[in-house]
Amino acid sequence: MLDTIIIGAGPAGMAAGIYAARAELSHLVLECGLMSGGQIINTSEVDNYPGLKGIGGFELAMKFREHCDQCNVQFQDGKVTEVKKEDDGFSVVLENGDSLLAKTVLFATGAKHRKLEIPGEAEFSGSGVSYCATCDGAFFRGKEVAVVGGGDVAIEDALFLARICKKVYLVHRRDEFRAAKTLVNRLRACENVEFVLKATPVRIAGNGKVEALVVNTESGERELPVSGVFVAVGMLPNTELLKGLVSLDEAGYAMAGEDCKTSLPGVFAAGDLRTKHLRQVVTAAADGASAIYEIEAFLNNQ
Amino acid sequence: MLDTIIIGAGPAGMAAGIYAARAELSHLVLECGLMSGGQIINTSEVDNYPGLKGIGGFELAMKFREHCDQCNVQFQDGKVTEVKKEDDGFSVVLENGDSLLAKTVLFATGAKHRKLEIPGEAEFSGSGVSYCATCDGAFFRGKEVAVVGGGDVAIEDALFLARICKKVYLVHRRDEFRAAKTLVNRLRACENVEFVLKATPVRIAGNGKVEALVVNTESGERELPVSGVFVAVGMLPNTELLKGLVSLDEAGYAMAGEDCKTSLPGVFAAGDLRTKHLRQVVTAAADGASAIYEIEAFLNNQ
Repeated sequence: MLDTIIIGAGPAGMAAGIYAARAELSHLVLECGLMSGGQIINTSEVDNYPGLKGIGGFELAMKFREHCDQCNVQFQDGKVTEVKKEDDGFSVVLENGDSLLAKTVLFATGAKHRKLEIPGEAEFSGSGVSYCATCDGAFFRGKEVAVVGGGDVAIEDALFLARICKKVYLVHRRDEFRAAKTLVNRLRACENVEFVLKATPVRIAGNGKVEALVVNTESGERELPVSGVFVAVGMLPNTELLKGLVSLDEAGYAMAGEDCKTSLPGVFAAGDLRTKHLRQVVTAAADGASAIYEIEAFLNNQ
Repeated sequence: MLDTIIIGAGPAGMAAGIYAARAELSHLVLECGLMSGGQIINTSEVDNYPGLKGIGGFELAMKFREHCDQCNVQFQDGKVTEVKKEDDGFSVVLENGDSLLAKTVLFATGAKHRKLEIPGEAEFSGSGVSYCATCDGAFFRGKEVAVVGGGDVAIEDALFLARICKKVYLVHRRDEFRAAKTLVNRLRACENVEFVLKATPVRIAGNGKVEALVVNTESGERELPVSGVFVAVGMLPNTELLKGLVSLDEAGYAMAGEDCKTSLPGVFAAGDLRTKHLRQVVTAAADGASAIYEIEAFLNNQ
C-alpha cells in the first residue's frame, strides 16, 4: 500500500514526484509514453518557464526528469486501464493486468489540443503550427499569422498576437462567435486584424516552413500568406479514467481548485486536466507541488 | 499610462514581468531591495524548483533576472509609499515623490517569516535555521532537528520532518495547540518525536554550524542537541500598501484565488502575499503567469 500513485509524467506529474520524494512519501509515477515530459516533448522551444529561458521542450523535459532522478523519484512504465475505490484506498489497474494499491491517487494525465486534422498540420506542428499563443506568440514578432477558432481563447489569442505581429487573420467557420462580445469588439477595433469568416481551413502549405494557410470560403479557396498558424479550437482533457469516479465539468475537465482536490477524497488532479484558467508548464509544476502538499495533509488526517 | 505596474521583484514579480513582456504589455517592475529575487536571495539552496535541482537561492534569483533581461522586462528601483485608485486606473506613488500611472497594479510584495528574535537565529539563518520544512527538510536527513511552533504548519512540519530525520523535538510555549487535534495526535504517535512543551527558545548555539537549541522550561534551561531549527511561528505578509484598498484576511493576506484577482477590479496579488495554501518558488512563479493572463483579460474587457 503506497502513500500515493501519480499517473502521468509531464511537468505536473514530475513536479509531484519531486515533492513526494523529498517528503519521503512512498510513491510511484506511472508513465505510459516512451519518455517523460508530456506535451512539452513535442514543443520546439519553451520560452516562458521562469529561470530557463529559450530551452527546447525536449531539453526541459530532461531537466525535470534529471531533477526527479536525483531526488530518487520512482517511475514505472505502465498504461492505467482503471482506478477503483477500495475500502482502505485505491487500486490502480494496469494494462498488463497488474494491480497497484495506494492510499491516494494523483491524476496528472494532462490534456491535448483539438486538431484541425488537415494536411500540413502535423508536419509543421511545433515549427509554425502552434496550439498556444501565450507560449509561442513571441516567436512570431513582426510576422503575419492566422488564428483559427471562435471561442474566448481564439479571440484572446488573436488580441495577444495583434500586439506582437504585423498582421493577424482570424479564421472562423461561422460568422458568429461563442466568444464574449467585448472581446470580439475589441478585436474588430485592431487595425492589423482581418476577419476571415465562414471559412474552413483546408491545408497548411509551405516548403520547410509554413508559408500559407489555405481556407475554403463562400467565394472559393483563399490563400492566407502567414508564417504561423495558431489553432484554438479547444482542448481535450485526458480524463477518461476519471469518468464515474470524480466530478468533471462539461468540457470533461476534472473539477478541482488550486488545492487539486477532486470531488472524491483521496483522488487529486494536477495540471492541464483540471479546471483552471491558464495551462502552462509553470502552472502545471505548481499544481504538482500543491497536490503533494494536500496529499500529505490528507494522509496526516486519516 | 502603463498597462500594468508590478510591485516586487521576487519569483512572482519576475515571472509576471516575463509574461508581461512576452505579451507586449507596457509595464514596469518596481523593486525596492538591492537586487531582484525576494526571499530566495537569502536561501542557501533551493532544491525543489522543478528543473533546477540544488541551485543556490542567489543563483536562482539570477536565473530569473537573466530570463527577464532577455525578454526585455522593464525594472525600476523605487519604494512604493501609496497606491491610489484614480478614475481611469491607479497611481503608484514612490518614496521620492514620483507618481506613476497604470491601468492595473499587480502586488507581488511577498511575505516574511515571523522570527524568534533570539541570539543565533540571524547568524544561522539559511544554514541550520530554516523557516520552511518543505523547502529545507531534505537537507536534514538522518539528523536531529527542532520545530518551534504550535499551529497547523508547525505540526505538519514536524510530521514531515519525522519521516526524514532521526529525531524531531517539537518546541511550543504552551501545552495546548492551535493546530488540528488529528494532526497533534498523529504527531504524538511518532516514536522519534519528543514534545518539549511550556518551553521558550532562548538561543541557538553552535560553532560555525547549529549544534543546539537552548530552551527555557518550567524545570529550567534545557539544551536540545539539534543540527537544524525549523521556525514555524507564522508569516507576515507585506500588505501594508493594500490596507484599505482591497480585502485582507485576518492574518493580513490579500484575499485572492489562483486567478490573483483581489476584491478591487484592476488590482491583482501574486505570490506569498495572497491567501493560498502552499508558498513555494514554483507556486509564486505560477501566480505571476496567472496574474498577467488575468490582467490581459481585464484590459481586453475595458
